[in-house]
Amino acid sequence: MSILVVGSVALDSVQTPFGKKEEVLGGSATYFSIAASFFDKVNMVAAVGKDFPKKYINIFKNKEIGIDGLSVLKGETFRWKGRYEYDLSHAHTIYTRLNVFRDFHPQIPHSLRGSKFIFLANINPELQYSVLKQVHKPKFVVLDSMNYWIEHKRQALEKILERIDILLLNDAEAREFSGESNLLKAALVALTFGPKAVIIKKGEHGVIYASKKSHFLCPAYLLESIYDPTGAGDTFAGGLIGYLSKACAIDEPSIRKGIIYGSILASFAVEDFSVNRLLEISIGDIRSRYKHFKKLTKF
Amino acid sequence: MSILVVGSVALDSVQTPFGKKEEVLGGSATYFSIAASFFDKVNMVAAVGKDFPKKYINIFKNKEIGIDGLSVLKGETFRWKGRYEYDLSHAHTIYTRLNVFRDFHPQIPHSLRGSKFIFLANINPELQYSVLKQVHKPKFVVLDSMNYWIEHKRQALEKILERIDILLLNDAEAREFSGESNLLKAALVALTFGPKAVIIKKGEHGVIYASKKSHFLCPAYLLESIYDPTGAGDTFAGGLIGYLSKACAIDEPSIRKGIIYGSILASFAVEDFSVNRLLEISIGDIRSRYKHFKKLTKF
Repeated sequence: MSILVVGSVALDSVQTPFGKKEEVLGGSATYFSIAASFFDKVNMVAAVGKDFPKKYINIFKNKEIGIDGLSVLKGETFRWKGRYEYDLSHAHTIYTRLNVFRDFHPQIPHSLRGSKFIFLANINPELQYSVLKQVHKPKFVVLDSMNYWIEHKRQALEKILERIDILLLNDAEAREFSGESNLLKAALVALTFGPKAVIIKKGEHGVIYASKKSHFLCPAYLLESIYDPTGAGDTFAGGLIGYLSKACAIDEPSIRKGIIYGSILASFAVEDFSVNRLLEISIGDIRSRYKHFKKLTKF
Repeated sequence: MSILVVGSVALDSVQTPFGKKEEVLGGSATYFSIAASFFDKVNMVAAVGKDFPKKYINIFKNKEIGIDGLSVLKGETFRWKGRYEYDLSHAHTIYTRLNVFRDFHPQIPHSLRGSKFIFLANINPELQYSVLKQVHKPKFVVLDSMNYWIEHKRQALEKILERIDILLLNDAEAREFSGESNLLKAALVALTFGPKAVIIKKGEHGVIYASKKSHFLCPAYLLESIYDPTGAGDTFAGGLIGYLSKACAIDEPSIRKGIIYGSILASFAVEDFSVNRLLEISIGDIRSRYKHFKKLTKF
């Protein structure tokens, strides 16, 4: 099947206790696409400025990521600068410069409007809704959001939740959205807004999946070294949706496998800055970590 | 087989966002024994004061917990008072009154010196060592400790680690003991001190098991309502060791199953104050939650 992601392509500057990188490739659509590209064809809709380095475009091309929907606009590329403390659990934003992303109104090229697996990365829910109106009969839609939209665009967010398959939130966002501290309760509240399922990302503690029918607990893959958690959530989504698209399946056993693949892709992503580690690995490395994950959790 | 626990029997006063209890049954040996008693015969070695309520003794008797090693001493029973904030993740101690526990020097009755499964609950590691010298050829020894002993009795703690099968620590203790923030690294450092395996308890995020040969990840059972986390770690140990003793097995597949049983017993324990919930459930309830746990984690 074919995958469509609408999100950001950015230049990130990141500082962690393990180092510092300036203006490296980042953005939700970037992490998602590279992760999903291990499994199936993925097309991105995003915008960058004239200053966006050619070498990063080449990365997308080498990964056979469709960039027909990547607009190169007058102005500068979206930039984010952040810092992580010793425990790596929270990003402290130093600045966000929206630049060309400020006026980003995603236009889905006609050739991509039949895409079946859609990832609406974390952007204004009104824009996410406009994307859904442009695509024809998608099979599976996953939506990510964040505290800013929960606080400032709650109504628009609620409106789109009725039309999606999976709502992805991290633990803090799930608590804020639901008003519940307990994460199972938070997931159950989120389900009442209409998504078929909710996935709560707990970082190094794994994820909780909840639908009306059942729940699934997935610990995070055990790592000795985490260098940079930036993009882990979008990489997770890329592994999940990439696997489902390749498998042409959206039943729960497939979603569970997809969640494991998502966790594994994320576990690679955090082992280096930017998308560096994702560019080193092969599908064989992913499969081998999947097998190890089975062993790690078997009882 | 037979199980021996050496630890505390206490009167706890606990406040959580969900209520308040005064002078209720608590202590590591209490939680452990009740949990283990679902699987096999367990004997406790502990001390209480003359003020210890008869009704609590009757709870032990009803659970067929061996109390030949429970000394009733002149003076008052060990008391602990604590408070949990909204997220229930940390206990804030209001006071600890050691009372008769101050001079507790565990004497193992001769009839119990052949015990095969030993739980050295969180007491002074010098006393834990003296217990090990009193028992003959135990098959399996699990040791719990805490930040106080890590800081004040490090040498004694290190000495006993060479002689045990599993070291149980929570995440903060594991970080403090090892000097490593990453929990896998922390477990690997702890292993260098000699225990055959390390279990790091992460509360609502489950546990990590690590031996030199392999690792096991176990998420915590999903609960909508947690009332009081007191005793969850000792209850976990009771489920783990109870299962292993009943199964007469200490191979890794059995330890993994035992860890699941431990998590399940702990999930019941936190659903009410003191040992109340543990006194309500049957082995059938435990088995049914085990089956549900399988479903929750299958992929």
